[in-house]
Amino acid sequence: APAAGAAVTESVFVRIPALAARHGAVNLAQGVFDHGPEPVLLDALAAVGGGVEHQYAPSPGHPRLRAALARHVERHDGAAVRPDEEITVTVGATEALHCAITALVRPGSEVLLVEPAYEQYAPVVRSAGGVPRALRLRSARERVTAEELEALVTPATRAIVVNTPWNPLGRALDEQEWRAVAGLAERHGIVVVSDEPYEHLSLDGSPHRGVLAAVPDPELRIKISSVSKTFAATGWRIGWAVAGPELTRRIRAVHQFLTFCPPTPLQLATAAVLDDPGTGGVLERRARELGEKVRGFAADLRGLGLPAETPDCGFFVLADVGEDAEDWCHRMITDAGVAGLPMSVFYSEPVAGTGSIVRFAACKRQETLTEAVRRLGSVL
Amino acid sequence: APAAGAAVTESVFVRIPALAARHGAVNLAQGVFDHGPEPVLLDALAAVGGGVEHQYAPSPGHPRLRAALARHVERHDGAAVRPDEEITVTVGATEALHCAITALVRPGSEVLLVEPAYEQYAPVVRSAGGVPRALRLRSARERVTAEELEALVTPATRAIVVNTPWNPLGRALDEQEWRAVAGLAERHGIVVVSDEPYEHLSLDGSPHRGVLAAVPDPELRIKISSVSKTFAATGWRIGWAVAGPELTRRIRAVHQFLTFCPPTPLQLATAAVLDDPGTGGVLERRARELGEKVRGFAADLRGLGLPAETPDCGFFVLADVGEDAEDWCHRMITDAGVAGLPMSVFYSEPVAGTGSIVRFAACKRQETLTEAVRRLGSVL
Ligand SMILES: CSCCC(=O)C(=O)O
Ligand SMILES: CSCCC(=O)C(=O)O
Repeated sequence: APAAGAAVTESVFVRIPALAARHGAVNLAQGVFDHGPEPVLLDALAAVGGGVEHQYAPSPGHPRLRAALARHVERHDGAAVRPDEEITVTVGATEALHCAITALVRPGSEVLLVEPAYEQYAPVVRSAGGVPRALRLRSARERVTAEELEALVTPATRAIVVNTPWNPLGRALDEQEWRAVAGLAERHGIVVVSDEPYEHLSLDGSPHRGVLAAVPDPELRIKISSVSKTFAATGWRIGWAVAGPELTRRIRAVHQFLTFCPPTPLQLATAAVLDDPGTGGVLERRARELGEKVRGFAADLRGLGLPAETPDCGFFVLADVGEDAEDWCHRMITDAGVAGLPMSVFYSEPVAGTGSIVRFAACKRQETLTEAVRRLGSVL
Repeated sequence: APAAGAAVTESVFVRIPALAARHGAVNLAQGVFDHGPEPVLLDALAAVGGGVEHQYAPSPGHPRLRAALARHVERHDGAAVRPDEEITVTVGATEALHCAITALVRPGSEVLLVEPAYEQYAPVVRSAGGVPRALRLRSARERVTAEELEALVTPATRAIVVNTPWNPLGRALDEQEWRAVAGLAERHGIVVVSDEPYEHLSLDGSPHRGVLAAVPDPELRIKISSVSKTFAATGWRIGWAVAGPELTRRIRAVHQFLTFCPPTPLQLATAAVLDDPGTGGVLERRARELGEKVRGFAADLRGLGLPAETPDCGFFVLADVGEDAEDWCHRMITDAGVAGLPMSVFYSEPVAGTGSIVRFAACKRQETLTEAVRRLGSVL
């Protein structure tokens, strides 16, 4: 066989769900809902016509969706962005991240990551010929500081990827951290790629503060978000990247040859959902209900003797299992029928004090969470 | 602004349709239908449930769609392929090509292209750090020969990309050409990436002969196809790559971090369509009706004094406009309100005898084609 091009690794989000399925285990390892999307999405999809609504959209995104996104961003981020020049619709936040990183990195470029970091970032940096450089936090209590970021910068640094609300830490970047990131970006001309798919899942009522509010220069910021977590529709694969015109030109240059465009009927349905006057209320209800569920699940874990932290936002619960988390997770899949994810997968090297932490995704029906707790209880 | 990563070019399939729209021109420059998809797709989409059908599918593709694709491939290509190990579902043929090329190429790898070649191939080769090397044909009458291919091979050659039926030539690779390609692959361990989205659009009734029939070694072939052209649903963005298990592992390693998975509801609807017993008849009717339309359009162009070739397959009509095709196309957009595409966009350098050829996409409603001919007639 000819020599491989890209490295062949299997994502934990491929490997663990498959392993869980083979063992009939409840999949709390992956941030995927086990129920339907918000009903407004189904209604909007059913209302899409049967003509050119099923043909290619313009590669940057259907104009109707870009216009709706501009209004959505204005409403929620307080930023005025031009749909024609500053928004690109992508196949989920996944493709948006791929396009953003590929647009910025050339061989030898360095990209700062803040670990624990979502699994996709580093492989995409490397696939573009870049080198990831990681700052590492051990827990949600630690903070990103300007000094530590500054120490990682070299003349090759092109971008920093942040994730707020932060998977798996369960908290958002605070104002001081944003100041550190924004200051770094301005001092060195580094672009801030901000992955914000959990932006509407504030469980404690605090408002989202994303890159559009924190970094004033449109050519130094890329906001990435999606339908997936906001509307419980991870299978719709509608995401977007918001950036200044020059960055957007580069993002689109990658996107056009990567997927050309996301599915047109789902773009149109998403546009209708974003423009629906009821959607603001849907988002508030979802965050409130999710908050109750997540708090209850974290309390149940504590009831089992597992020190678990209640997140401020998102739906990931971190618990200390008091032993090697990889061993524990493997045993729980086979013995209890519950799959969690060792936090170690979010680090590029072992970090003292984090080896016993497990991440549970609580974006599941209440009965699924109750059953998972029952199963864990039967073996712990 | 920081230095760019990727090159910033705008696809002709972004630039020309936008230009056409600004001038109110009929878009015959792009292979996009101006009507709805086959009704069976709309029915299948309406029948998709409202639960986890809207959540992430497994990254390699929903098991139901992979099983349906294995049956589809068995029926139409006569090849037995295993859905678990040899099929990957992607966001259109576009993402499949991106994954296939990226999986094979590393910096310095060479990839053979046969021009006129679809615009996407070369930029994707380059984005992976590879170097495209092109064999060039001047018309549908010329043939790919073993000798000419052989002369392009170096120790760095990893893959050859072919497209059959061939956009824009309007013919399929014949048996002798397939023998040349297959022999080359076997002699040098070169992977044949075969882009076959027009496989079901035979206008003269001749059966499709693709890479699965022509190249016996599963680790030397990647078949790529999609829903887009087959079912008149370019906006569904459901494609796939069929390859041996080792190649498939590599393709999936790219795919998982590029889009993760295509939209689940459209995957499920596609599975239902492929398994529908009526689908064979739909494909035959479509090819027949398209054939009539395309033949009529080519005849109409000839009636205007433009020597136009009737294609054997696909829906692209090549016509000699007797002057520089780029100038002519530009003038027709502004003066006649009709957009065609100069064949020069499919060549990486000018080729004698091809500079006056224009490609028209005839995948439009009859009234659209009639109106385009009327408009052209009014200025020619
Ligand atoms: C693409 S599957 C991963 C889903 C997710 O965001 C997570 O579990 O962290
Ligand atoms: C992605 S738009 C291009 C459609 C097409 O296949 C063509 O026009 O050649």
